[in-house]
Amino acid sequence: MTNTLLILPGDGIGPEVMAEVHRIIDWYGTKRDLKFDVTEDLVGGAAYDAHGKPLSDATMAKAQEVDAVLLGAVGGPQYDKLDFSLKPERGLLRLRKEMDLFANLRPAQCFDALADFSSLKRDVVSGLDIMIVRELTSGIYFGEPRGIIEEGGQRVGLNTQRYTEAEIDRVARSAFELARKRGNKVCSMEKANVMESGILWREVVQKVHDESYPDVELSHMYADAGGMQLCRWPKQFDVILTDNLFGDLLSDVAAMLTGSLGMLPSASLGAPMENGRPKAMYEPVHGSAPDIAGQGKANPIACILSFAMALRYSFDEGAEATRLEKAVEKVLADGVRTADLMGAEGGTPVSTAQMGDAILAAL
Amino acid sequence: MTNTLLILPGDGIGPEVMAEVHRIIDWYGTKRDLKFDVTEDLVGGAAYDAHGKPLSDATMAKAQEVDAVLLGAVGGPQYDKLDFSLKPERGLLRLRKEMDLFANLRPAQCFDALADFSSLKRDVVSGLDIMIVRELTSGIYFGEPRGIIEEGGQRVGLNTQRYTEAEIDRVARSAFELARKRGNKVCSMEKANVMESGILWREVVQKVHDESYPDVELSHMYADAGGMQLCRWPKQFDVILTDNLFGDLLSDVAAMLTGSLGMLPSASLGAPMENGRPKAMYEPVHGSAPDIAGQGKANPIACILSFAMALRYSFDEGAEATRLEKAVEKVLADGVRTADLMGAEGGTPVSTAQMGDAILAAL
Ligand SMILES: CC(C)[C@H](C(=O)O)[C@@H](O)C(=O)O
Ligand SMILES: CC(C)[C@H](C(=O)O)[C@@H](O)C(=O)O
Repeated sequence: MTNTLLILPGDGIGPEVMAEVHRIIDWYGTKRDLKFDVTEDLVGGAAYDAHGKPLSDATMAKAQEVDAVLLGAVGGPQYDKLDFSLKPERGLLRLRKEMDLFANLRPAQCFDALADFSSLKRDVVSGLDIMIVRELTSGIYFGEPRGIIEEGGQRVGLNTQRYTEAEIDRVARSAFELARKRGNKVCSMEKANVMESGILWREVVQKVHDESYPDVELSHMYADAGGMQLCRWPKQFDVILTDNLFGDLLSDVAAMLTGSLGMLPSASLGAPMENGRPKAMYEPVHGSAPDIAGQGKANPIACILSFAMALRYSFDEGAEATRLEKAVEKVLADGVRTADLMGAEGGTPVSTAQMGDAILAAL
Repeated sequence: MTNTLLILPGDGIGPEVMAEVHRIIDWYGTKRDLKFDVTEDLVGGAAYDAHGKPLSDATMAKAQEVDAVLLGAVGGPQYDKLDFSLKPERGLLRLRKEMDLFANLRPAQCFDALADFSSLKRDVVSGLDIMIVRELTSGIYFGEPRGIIEEGGQRVGLNTQRYTEAEIDRVARSAFELARKRGNKVCSMEKANVMESGILWREVVQKVHDESYPDVELSHMYADAGGMQLCRWPKQFDVILTDNLFGDLLSDVAAMLTGSLGMLPSASLGAPMENGRPKAMYEPVHGSAPDIAGQGKANPIACILSFAMALRYSFDEGAEATRLEKAVEKVLADGVRTADLMGAEGGTPVSTAQMGDAILAAL
């Protein structure tokens, strides 16, 4: 079976960090005889500059055909004034929606060598390893009606949160499956005390649990309390299951807690394709960081670890994924640091490419 | 002018903490000749037990007439299976909506004596003093259509986020007014990158600023990035302005950061009444804590400080509010601690009433 990859570096630091992933991919081809058929294309502001929209139909079609899409980051201040439908984010959201990538996996992991970077106390975060499963193709991100309408002489901003039973069911299954391979615990978060969509969410998650995953420990928490508990004692969690909007916020909070923001990858998975592999896109959790773009300062680790997730979830190369993750851990333990990881101790930061060098050497 | 107060102790620890507020109110009457005409009534589960609904029409009518409502907390596991419309929370939400309390002020303050309670590092939180202004009467909490509907043979959970220009305008003014009395900075948070209601929010906030508060420093942040920044370096903020749902989550995160959760009050303010005072309700940020209810263990400080906010915002007694706040600070500095404040150092916790004693003594 060939391994096909579509690489969309995007905007800001996207191309820089993706350049290091290219080197890792080459290493796997030469050193481990694990070959990838790679195509590269545009997304976000870069696509807008070239084609006048943040994702061309041709790129969308390619994304549907490959085993995995690897995305850098999208967005930048020069696109802030664009019409909503042309913003860089719409390219990303179109990929998620049309590929139907309903399960967004966001590990929030604290790298031991970096625990002191967290604004939280060391004992609260060291060793932290939770997985947030965020629903990614529905909810208020996509619900209709939406828009800015005129009503009674004034404008009204409108968005709709919608979840069907089937949408909740499938992402709940993803969370329970993952939990079985980890700590066997799922905590589902919504606002069932104020939103009917939360009531349905809670009910369906409970039903999927009772019928198919009674061996997994399930709890429910209101999303506001969940945010609090994440800040108080995040280690109480194993897998957190939540909707698109709450997941956006809670996964960012969780990521920041670890102190390892520039290090965190994500996977967005859909249904199996004909070859048995899931539709999939991988991207770092961090953004396009326009303030440091083009300076060779960016940390490529999140993007590299996103490729590691691709090895695990798309190409069934779990052992190779672990090899890559271990190489990253070693480099961090050795004290190699990009600028974002320079702490009070000082020292000289390495460049994006030097971090790539170090990881290749560790491999 | 008489000062009228409606006290709704509610459920769980509500009645216990409110009992201490009663003593403080009595103290003001005898010692400072500041008299309150107090009525007490039921809300939440307590009201459901008595009347079959979480807020009777008679109580609602009373709330509309008084200068200020003081609420303890609502909710408890025995009400979990009730129909959505009968849940304790609906009583609270009805008060907010019918009194049109659009501006929810949630100070997130770190008491110096308690900084070590935070899961965050001391230097990140000590001295922290931010004010979250959360829109409280609109957004997805109240938007129609809502419910669980049948569609194509399956159930769909539905909620609607709606914001009119006028709704955004008035709460933005509250935030700018407050900022002028504080650090003169407002950061407004939404998801304008994915929600049209967020686009309108951003636009109206900017317009109110430019037209009426150009002297206040205004910035905008996506709510997920806002959650991150709250965890990373909360002291960058002065006033945070946000909508009902984001405010729910972000204010809980901010509250937990301070390590002073059992200490945080809130005020919910509406338009001025005929006597010039705003419609107002005051409540602690913490919940009903059913696990410790009835044991005399609860910390009454959040509820007492909510009364201090009432002194300031409803009764124009800012100096008396400060007196009460200083008394609380002194008691904390003296090391008086309820069970929730017992740290690793150990010691013997005081009861709810003993904490009340100490604050009265400090007054
Ligand atoms: C860029 C933006 C559209 C996106 C989102 O809101 O989902 C981002 O915040 C994320 O979490 O991936
Ligand atoms: C109890 C609940 C309805 C309420 C809310 O969601 O607003 C609470 O979480 C709050 O923040 O006051």
